[in-house]
Amino acid sequence: MMDFGGIFMKFIIEKDYFTEAINHVSKAVSSKTTISILTGIKIELKANGLALTASDADISIQCFIPLDEGDKKIIHVETIGSVVVPAKYFFEIIRKLPQPKVEIEIGERWLTTIRSGQSEFKLNGLDPEEFPRLPQLSEDRVFSISSQLLRSMIKQTVFAVSTVETRPVLTGVLWSLNEGRFKMVATDSHRLATREALVEANDPLSFQNVVVPGKSLNELNKILQDDDSIIDIVVTDNQILVKSADVLFYTRLLDGTYPDTSRIIPQSSKTEMIVPAKLFLDSIERASLLAKDGKTNIVKLATIGEKTIEISSNIPEVGRVTEQVEVRLLDGEELQISFNAKFMIDTIRAIDASEILIGFTGAMSPFIIKPVENEWMLYLILPVRTY
Amino acid sequence: MMDFGGIFMKFIIEKDYFTEAINHVSKAVSSKTTISILTGIKIELKANGLALTASDADISIQCFIPLDEGDKKIIHVETIGSVVVPAKYFFEIIRKLPQPKVEIEIGERWLTTIRSGQSEFKLNGLDPEEFPRLPQLSEDRVFSISSQLLRSMIKQTVFAVSTVETRPVLTGVLWSLNEGRFKMVATDSHRLATREALVEANDPLSFQNVVVPGKSLNELNKILQDDDSIIDIVVTDNQILVKSADVLFYTRLLDGTYPDTSRIIPQSSKTEMIVPAKLFLDSIERASLLAKDGKTNIVKLATIGEKTIEISSNIPEVGRVTEQVEVRLLDGEELQISFNAKFMIDTIRAIDASEILIGFTGAMSPFIIKPVENEWMLYLILPVRTY
Repeated sequence: MMDFGGIFMKFIIEKDYFTEAINHVSKAVSSKTTISILTGIKIELKANGLALTASDADISIQCFIPLDEGDKKIIHVETIGSVVVPAKYFFEIIRKLPQPKVEIEIGERWLTTIRSGQSEFKLNGLDPEEFPRLPQLSEDRVFSISSQLLRSMIKQTVFAVSTVETRPVLTGVLWSLNEGRFKMVATDSHRLATREALVEANDPLSFQNVVVPGKSLNELNKILQDDDSIIDIVVTDNQILVKSADVLFYTRLLDGTYPDTSRIIPQSSKTEMIVPAKLFLDSIERASLLAKDGKTNIVKLATIGEKTIEISSNIPEVGRVTEQVEVRLLDGEELQISFNAKFMIDTIRAIDASEILIGFTGAMSPFIIKPVENEWMLYLILPVRTY
Repeated sequence: MMDFGGIFMKFIIEKDYFTEAINHVSKAVSSKTTISILTGIKIELKANGLALTASDADISIQCFIPLDEGDKKIIHVETIGSVVVPAKYFFEIIRKLPQPKVEIEIGERWLTTIRSGQSEFKLNGLDPEEFPRLPQLSEDRVFSISSQLLRSMIKQTVFAVSTVETRPVLTGVLWSLNEGRFKMVATDSHRLATREALVEANDPLSFQNVVVPGKSLNELNKILQDDDSIIDIVVTDNQILVKSADVLFYTRLLDGTYPDTSRIIPQSSKTEMIVPAKLFLDSIERASLLAKDGKTNIVKLATIGEKTIEISSNIPEVGRVTEQVEVRLLDGEELQISFNAKFMIDTIRAIDASEILIGFTGAMSPFIIKPVENEWMLYLILPVRTY
């Protein structure tokens, strides 16, 4: 590195752009590590813009801020260079600075000066050479998807991953791609969520058993824009890279073989109903109120008459609740079934449709839930025995 | 109680009024008690309206809902009576009911049926005879104050009470009244907050050493309306009652003699400054960012030149921050002083004025903070020694 009179990097940047990028990469900062360099954010000023990078054991995030956006100057470069700053303080400091422009200057021993208006911070920085390099991935297995669609696919599946580590592979979401159909599957072995969509891939790309940690996907979803910008996804054997215009998001994959869930999906129903989603959701929520302290949150669903179902819950020491919901369609055998209310609430919220189709094949078999006339989503809940 | 065919109370009520009243009295429900009747809310339907009551060891709250409000019918009475319902479930249940009207019916053994639309709850209630009676206070010592003013007086003092139990009397706010001047004082022995106002009292009412628990005042402030409705306050030796149109709020008082704080307030200053509140507050907040993990949060204030002060903080392992603020007036001796940033932030927020007067009498003496040209508020902070 050249020595410019003791200044190893200097630039002036628009605070809003800087804050947003720091906020994004902060999601990959290790909070519990003992490796001090990983508690930092690497800031690297190049000739064409500023790159911010953070990494923890599972994910790495890099945000890029160009020098200009259209006619608007974002960064005024004085000296290119790099540094690692302590993430814990950096975001709050930049966010609270008094003026819309921020000056950053790195001096001897990575001392980082931050100036804005009459405010000046001097932070102890770290040597950027010690910061781990981003992985170099071969980009021959790539497909594209809109940011919006990727975001909702994640939201519609990730809630169903397992949160216990007894079968680590179930803490991830299974991704697969076959003939342009991109599919996500999540299960904690009591319920299952699947979501498919058509995507664009170069060549006839296909992959199976790509298991992305649920935790990584939750972080990714905080960064993904809710718009139709195009995201490229690079798939390798042990990690994936999610690329948007200004953000690179790397996550490791989970080891192990994901179970074959297709064989547990029932192919026909003995009782089928189409329920109004909002009324049904409200009823389930009320029916689960009395059980809120219990470790299980079980409600009972019973068909009564030709177009009505009853949701009920009985907690002897507290009381009981009975809800009736008129359904649009009720077909097949009479039914009484019990299930975890939380699973049903999660599922109806994930589907986010005005009407929901539920198909049962008996009181002790998994039942399917999906939007009416939509084959891209399918949910399964395993009932519980209450007698 | 007469037996009306097994129904001991029955009424239909507008959900919104019911929800608000339950929410208010819930603030007095014991969450940790082993006395099960105190985990409940007493509901008592009388000829003129519905009274809801809850009590814990410190406070009791009663809300009254009249049968009508102007032309609007709020309660339709079928059978008067009373019951105690479990607070933990009751608020959530009523709040989430599907229709704007709620029917309540009490049957044998206090079984409480709640109906709304197609939703029906049956809760195990308790015998209202077991619920503690509200205290009967003699109302000869009463004064009046607007709800708004009482609310801000509490807000402007209660933050300074002690949160440790070593001197229990300091966990309360001292109330006194002399010649129509109502005064609140709070101190944790490192800082002091005082606020006075003129109030209306019957006869020449005066009292000293009425110490109201800070916790009670925080709960009271959640209920007080931010308007100019008149609140009556009844003072007795061991409790006070705060009465608004529809709410009675009782709190016990703290035992012990509150220390005489008047003698520690300096009568003159050696250095005086008038600072712009918002800029000063922002500077203090930024200067305290680096210390956010430390147990003390100390910043230094120094006069530099004729119209500028410098706020700084130095945390060797992290870095340092320097802020300059232009003041409108700077009079008297040069000064360097250190203090707890949180105390200053609390105080400036409590004063809520555009300009703040600060008067120092040396680096180791308590300094005063108050709004410019306003003698009703006075705050004191004890500096810390940093060398």
